[in-house]
Amino acid sequence: MAREIDLNADLGESYGAWRMGDDEAMFALITSANVACGFHAGDPLTMLGSARLAAEHGVALGAHPGYRDRAGFGRRALAVAADELAAEVLYQVGALAATARSAGVEVRYVKAHGALYHRLGADHAAATAVADALAGFDPALVVLGAPGGELERAAAVAGLRYAREAFIDRGYLADGTLVPRHEPGALVHDPGAAADRALELVETGGIAADDGARVELAPDSLCLHGDTPGSVDIARAVRSALDAAGHVVRPFA
Amino acid sequence: MAREIDLNADLGESYGAWRMGDDEAMFALITSANVACGFHAGDPLTMLGSARLAAEHGVALGAHPGYRDRAGFGRRALAVAADELAAEVLYQVGALAATARSAGVEVRYVKAHGALYHRLGADHAAATAVADALAGFDPALVVLGAPGGELERAAAVAGLRYAREAFIDRGYLADGTLVPRHEPGALVHDPGAAADRALELVETGGIAADDGARVELAPDSLCLHGDTPGSVDIARAVRSALDAAGHVVRPFA
Amino acid sequence: MAREIDLNADLGESYGAWRMGDDEAMFALITSANVACGFHAGDPLTMLGSARLAAEHGVALGAHPGYRDRAGFGRRALAVAADELAAEVLYQVGALAATARSAGVEVRYVKAHGALYHRLGADHAAATAVADALAGFDPALVVLGAPGGELERAAAVAGLRYAREAFIDRGYLADGTLVPRHEPGALVHDPGAAADRALELVETGGIAADDGARVELAPDSLCLHGDTPGSVDIARAVRSALDAAGHVVRPFA
Amino acid sequence: MAREIDLNADLGESYGAWRMGDDEAMFALITSANVACGFHAGDPLTMLGSARLAAEHGVALGAHPGYRDRAGFGRRALAVAADELAAEVLYQVGALAATARSAGVEVRYVKAHGALYHRLGADHAAATAVADALAGFDPALVVLGAPGGELERAAAVAGLRYAREAFIDRGYLADGTLVPRHEPGALVHDPGAAADRALELVETGGIAADDGARVELAPDSLCLHGDTPGSVDIARAVRSALDAAGHVVRPFA
Repeated sequence: MAREIDLNADLGESYGAWRMGDDEAMFALITSANVACGFHAGDPLTMLGSARLAAEHGVALGAHPGYRDRAGFGRRALAVAADELAAEVLYQVGALAATARSAGVEVRYVKAHGALYHRLGADHAAATAVADALAGFDPALVVLGAPGGELERAAAVAGLRYAREAFIDRGYLADGTLVPRHEPGALVHDPGAAADRALELVETGGIAADDGARVELAPDSLCLHGDTPGSVDIARAVRSALDAAGHVVRPFA
Repeated sequence: MAREIDLNADLGESYGAWRMGDDEAMFALITSANVACGFHAGDPLTMLGSARLAAEHGVALGAHPGYRDRAGFGRRALAVAADELAAEVLYQVGALAATARSAGVEVRYVKAHGALYHRLGADHAAATAVADALAGFDPALVVLGAPGGELERAAAVAGLRYAREAFIDRGYLADGTLVPRHEPGALVHDPGAAADRALELVETGGIAADDGARVELAPDSLCLHGDTPGSVDIARAVRSALDAAGHVVRPFA
Repeated sequence: MAREIDLNADLGESYGAWRMGDDEAMFALITSANVACGFHAGDPLTMLGSARLAAEHGVALGAHPGYRDRAGFGRRALAVAADELAAEVLYQVGALAATARSAGVEVRYVKAHGALYHRLGADHAAATAVADALAGFDPALVVLGAPGGELERAAAVAGLRYAREAFIDRGYLADGTLVPRHEPGALVHDPGAAADRALELVETGGIAADDGARVELAPDSLCLHGDTPGSVDIARAVRSALDAAGHVVRPFA
Repeated sequence: MAREIDLNADLGESYGAWRMGDDEAMFALITSANVACGFHAGDPLTMLGSARLAAEHGVALGAHPGYRDRAGFGRRALAVAADELAAEVLYQVGALAATARSAGVEVRYVKAHGALYHRLGADHAAATAVADALAGFDPALVVLGAPGGELERAAAVAGLRYAREAFIDRGYLADGTLVPRHEPGALVHDPGAAADRALELVETGGIAADDGARVELAPDSLCLHGDTPGSVDIARAVRSALDAAGHVVRPFA
């Protein structure tokens, strides 16, 4: 039975003279682009280029705010107070929103990056402050994140729609969290295996955990990585498998 | 005869732990606030605070973008390409726009800061790129700047309203440019003298240059400085003199 | 009986156009200056000015490295890996060392700033990495920090001399840690009280905790704050009291 | 007849998560490494890695300071005052010097980067300030730069040795300056042509300009680029040709 699914990826992660990822290739394969907003990666010109690619490919444009830690690519925990964090997220989303509008597209959703993604799933005060700030800016924004957790709850309270994502190329533990990066089974490198996982997630709403238990995720979107070796091959295999199986790949937002 | 005039000042120039200026006092005296957007000064939380002060005092909120040069406070010429500059301005204006909207106010105008202010008055390509970008984001934005020059021209071409400002506390040369900062007559420190100049500018539309020649400026707004010693005293004297003379001090935007 | 003691303060915390503290006044009162190195505060020109003030006043020059988090003034925990942290500390110390040498003085010691100060007292791996890096650069450097803790231990293992400091204007708990900032008794604002505490610390080697218990600190140096209201008054009162009591106030390094 | 020559390249230009160039390959081919110091590129951990590679390969380590403009990779003119520039250069050189010493090597020379390189060749005040600052830090440092110009003169006045470099992969005009990047003949892409030019430069001390006129350069070092496509191929061809011709390729410093 045909299902609808979205494919999202973190893009626009170049910075000045430094390139990251093959954005041109990825924009042709995905339906939602999480675009870095200049705090952990990205810069104004890269953001403008991403907005134009989104317009050209009919890809939904999402803001991908992160910690103000370019040196650490937003991957390190940083003890920013909740009110400051909310202001920082709004700053980044607004910067992309104006950039996008000048290119004829709108920011449709927000997905946090790296250490901020993890914090917002677990920190009640931070998730509430961020969701409230986003609702105060644009109540039509969708929040994209992990199933369950503080951000999903805070988005609901703030009146924002929340979309759930699952990871195609990361292994899951039985409790629904990811296998830590340096343990066996953490990463899926084989395009065929990734495509099989995508089909399983779309058709069953869940995936087998590392111990064989079933994890229910009910994803609205599947996350692909855009900046690892082989990421374009995986994206191509996943997209082809979903298309071939008759599923409708389109933006959730 | 009563005239209408606006008083603008650069505010929100604190950064993290560093304070600059007495924003609380200045917001009570002016009608338009040029708020730094995080590139040369300011940060997300300071911007939010400025937006709230603007709402509280009925002050028109303006974006005050500058060069991406915090170490130099945006005062140093930096050879940014025109297209990158336009993207950087849009980024900053959008960041403030979202922040402001969450506080219930809108960005009504844009005034460039420091070295960027001077460049946009003289650089055709840069002025055109910036004005086009702003019009592509929000055609209701007003551009505030010096009388004449490339930015006024570019704003007109882009369909944006342009407002002219005159400086109360800076001396003018006969050609309408400012007396360089380190020459005699460059700066007006006395509140009474500043108030007299404000009245002259409002009532006659011009001012006497350093050689006695008359400079026509037809200002929509008078610029006060918010970060120099005595700036609050000057602002208070100017505001009192304009009020006492029956002029209507209100936002141009 | 006359004792020897050092007075240290965090200085050189201005950044570009932003001023912080009254460094001119403080350099005349202290004997060791912890100079910010550009990561959490300070910049090359401010560092050079601080080195010149140290030379002029015969003040021992110390490097005051912090987290690479200017927006948070180095006060926020940041999960930097130990090896990267060591490289960052070395970078900062070296930058000040070269600057100082061009002004005719040498960096004599290192004291970590803010959240890094607290981390190095408690994180074995980070303290070890930093102490080893400092020893590999200059084994004559002294490390200044809190009594006990991981950094004191790591300095000993690395062969570096360690000097202990006590805080004049902060209350202590019975376990030797500081009263948290927002609790009663956390801060000493009265210059006279601060001077009494300085004398008690110098003459007895300890101080009464908030519950009356005695805390033994055996300080080589007393820390004064340079960036709070009244900090110069406190520094002056402390210096005067120590001088009047016949104690020898001079650098520990 | 066998000559001595040095091969230098800009390395250590990665930044955080962003990679640039194939440093491992280049360190094996060159004899002097110009290592970015964190202002326009590079970071503390990358600098430490470069110092270790230099030690491992017997490559002379040089500091490669640039403008404090990471967003522009130091390629854009920035109007920094001469005294601030000198402090910024010293800061960068000192940061690398401490990092290097902890890895068992010393910084032997300094070569400015990008827009700063060009400025120091032409700006008397800036060149003088920088050369004086370097001499005040370490009079054994060598300055590497273009033949002639303000920096060579300032280095001589400051008592610093100056080494001259020529570009293998850039075309020259008859006046000894480079063919602008976007004009025909600006760039040499062919490894064989580059190797021929290297031999010509080493054996004759000069090169044919774009109009056929001879340019005398008397280089102590030949500059290779490390961050362009094919740069490793060019470096390998040049090194092989010089070795095969019996020339002695070794550090100038």
